[in-house]
Amino acid sequence: MKRLNSRDPHFTEALRQLHDWDANLDPLVENRVREILAAVRERGDAALLEYSARFDGLHLETAAELEIPRRDWEEALAALSAPEREALEEAAHRIRGYHERQKLESWQYREADGTLLGQRVLPLARVGIYVPGGKAAYPSSVLMNALPARVAGVGEIHMTVPTPRGEVNPWVLAAAAVAGVDRVFRLGGAQAVAALAYGTELVPAVDKIVGPGNTYVATAKRMVFGRVGIDMIAGPSEILVISDGSAPAEWLAWDLLSQAEHDELAQSIFIAWDAAHLEAVAAAVDHALSQLDRAPIARQSWQERGALILATDAADACRIADGIAPEHLELAVADPEALLDKIHNAGAIFLGIHSCEALGDYVAGPNHVLPTGGSARFSSPLGVYDFVKRSSLIGASAAGAATLGALAERLARAEGLTAHARSAAARIPGH
Amino acid sequence: MKRLNSRDPHFTEALRQLHDWDANLDPLVENRVREILAAVRERGDAALLEYSARFDGLHLETAAELEIPRRDWEEALAALSAPEREALEEAAHRIRGYHERQKLESWQYREADGTLLGQRVLPLARVGIYVPGGKAAYPSSVLMNALPARVAGVGEIHMTVPTPRGEVNPWVLAAAAVAGVDRVFRLGGAQAVAALAYGTELVPAVDKIVGPGNTYVATAKRMVFGRVGIDMIAGPSEILVISDGSAPAEWLAWDLLSQAEHDELAQSIFIAWDAAHLEAVAAAVDHALSQLDRAPIARQSWQERGALILATDAADACRIADGIAPEHLELAVADPEALLDKIHNAGAIFLGIHSCEALGDYVAGPNHVLPTGGSARFSSPLGVYDFVKRSSLIGASAAGAATLGALAERLARAEGLTAHARSAAARIPGH
Repeated sequence: MKRLNSRDPHFTEALRQLHDWDANLDPLVENRVREILAAVRERGDAALLEYSARFDGLHLETAAELEIPRRDWEEALAALSAPEREALEEAAHRIRGYHERQKLESWQYREADGTLLGQRVLPLARVGIYVPGGKAAYPSSVLMNALPARVAGVGEIHMTVPTPRGEVNPWVLAAAAVAGVDRVFRLGGAQAVAALAYGTELVPAVDKIVGPGNTYVATAKRMVFGRVGIDMIAGPSEILVISDGSAPAEWLAWDLLSQAEHDELAQSIFIAWDAAHLEAVAAAVDHALSQLDRAPIARQSWQERGALILATDAADACRIADGIAPEHLELAVADPEALLDKIHNAGAIFLGIHSCEALGDYVAGPNHVLPTGGSARFSSPLGVYDFVKRSSLIGASAAGAATLGALAERLARAEGLTAHARSAAARIPGH
Repeated sequence: MKRLNSRDPHFTEALRQLHDWDANLDPLVENRVREILAAVRERGDAALLEYSARFDGLHLETAAELEIPRRDWEEALAALSAPEREALEEAAHRIRGYHERQKLESWQYREADGTLLGQRVLPLARVGIYVPGGKAAYPSSVLMNALPARVAGVGEIHMTVPTPRGEVNPWVLAAAAVAGVDRVFRLGGAQAVAALAYGTELVPAVDKIVGPGNTYVATAKRMVFGRVGIDMIAGPSEILVISDGSAPAEWLAWDLLSQAEHDELAQSIFIAWDAAHLEAVAAAVDHALSQLDRAPIARQSWQERGALILATDAADACRIADGIAPEHLELAVADPEALLDKIHNAGAIFLGIHSCEALGDYVAGPNHVLPTGGSARFSSPLGVYDFVKRSSLIGASAAGAATLGALAERLARAEGLTAHARSAAARIPGH
């Protein structure tokens, strides 16, 4: 864990090093992914079966076995205890409710001469959701990726999840049932992305692929971008907590570690302007670390990537946070709304000491798929808007075409584009 | 030019070959671009000066000369004739008006227990617009990229345009002045993308890069995606015209060629269900081709990439178009609104025989930066929504945190995430 002080003359550089994170562009990984994409594209299901045997230790005889039938998800859901099932369904209900507010409507207007202009919004036809296996197999991820697509009105939602040696997380299947996913395939890695992008006999090609994954998955998504849509290239998860000391140090320690326990590369940053409070939180983190199921992961994350920053005051803390553009920002202060104007870049903003990130991860309603690695400067939480597409509508009346045609002709001539000019001019009567 | 008939048993495969287009992923180009990105990142302006000398034949002594000062743009604008300037300003006025309707508002709501949920929408702080030089130096491109950013409220808009051997298109500069661009740099290729993504002493790093470019530019954008936002990986331009014979063949020929004259790789597809009408349009295209300033480009495009498709009827034509997901779709029919329900995938839809693509390219108002290469299946015209970012707002009341915390704790336990569970539980009184 690093200790920084914003009064330090080298603070800016130290801060840059702390949060500088570049998307992974390893040429060796790229070459392997390129091979996998080409193999699946050319040989379809046969290649999928080979990769599943090689990478997942999964020896299947027919491609059909790559699909996990709906009765398996329904059984997984039925096997949950009542409180577990209630928590999953209530989370889904709240996520759905929040995302309903993100719906976009088509619009159009008519000008005085009868010309119609507008924008039509339609859901995507088919979407693929990549769900990681292993230590990052989270049912909440299934809800957060599938429900906005469902709210958007997407026709078909297909999910892929790797099942190493056949192991499948029953919570993930239960979440697929709750979220209303249409089909589930036991596929992971670049080959899952390839199947979704190009389609095979078993797996239909989709229009967009969303969901987090390791560096192979991220590289594959980057490579198929253009043929299909992708959500974002997710980096490690981050939390940044700004505290005025209103919350007990212990609460803040759990908050910081709820990020660190995700992944060794996850980053937890704590900013305060009271040095004694900073030390109290540092001590609370040390104490809390030993109580975690995933203590080794959290400890490594906190030691190597964590930071305690002493700022001069609340405004300074906000300035620092804004430069980092964190995925999760907790304003653990008595009057969070007073700081909101000073913050421009953050995926999700948690207001006040009762708003811990864990609420947002599961049940508050907003999406937990958020821009990482500073990309909150330019991108947004996953939302309904990611599962629709827009078409412009241009319906020129005869009179409108004459007026607009004269202008278009002039500009087309300036660009040396004769056919454009003639096409516009043809609609002007007597031209 | 290919002739296809939808009754042909091999039609589906022939159609696939016609519009199959993959984003360029040439490993040799990638390696060169990777070098350029690294050089600009490490050596900043010095690398920019070297590349400008090497690729643009532009021998400058100081980095400051890489900036084109505002007085040059203002002179370029002042040098236009009155009708030229009026056309440019009227186009800007109409584009601005249409895009005003795309503005997104922040929203929030409070639940019964006082918990606040919402979404804040803010403009990006700084955006870079890449404008190609040479044969694709279009002033309309400057308007279409800069104005949505301006309407979104973007803080600073910086433009790069290559000026081979110092040549600069005065229309492009005039358009920068009209669109309210903030700074212009004479930079092109992967080095321009690198400068915008990483920043140099002269060129500030931006949050997002938009605008079309050649394969080096597209590859560079793909590689810096994640560090900065990008718009889309633009492929060649396409038009697809569905005609019931209501428009004169000559009009339709100009429409088809207004795409073909852009670029040898541009694609023009004509679909009708009346064989005689199809032949009349074929003949009109041949006749019109000889009258173009850019006849060689248009001829090559039409011969190698163009297509005439004989469909069985209007519904069949729409089905074919929907599979192609064209950038521009003209419904050159008497009752275009009757076909609209059958179309799901198109960047811009031109309704009726008076709505030619050229109107949309310049002055109708909607953006001419549209999804190409079939990506209208999942992406949208460039718009104000591309220049804003959203942050989720989560302000749990004490009561809300207790209710939500109990649910979150259960789900966190299911995922084996102790710190999440403890963080949520800490907010439940008496826990």
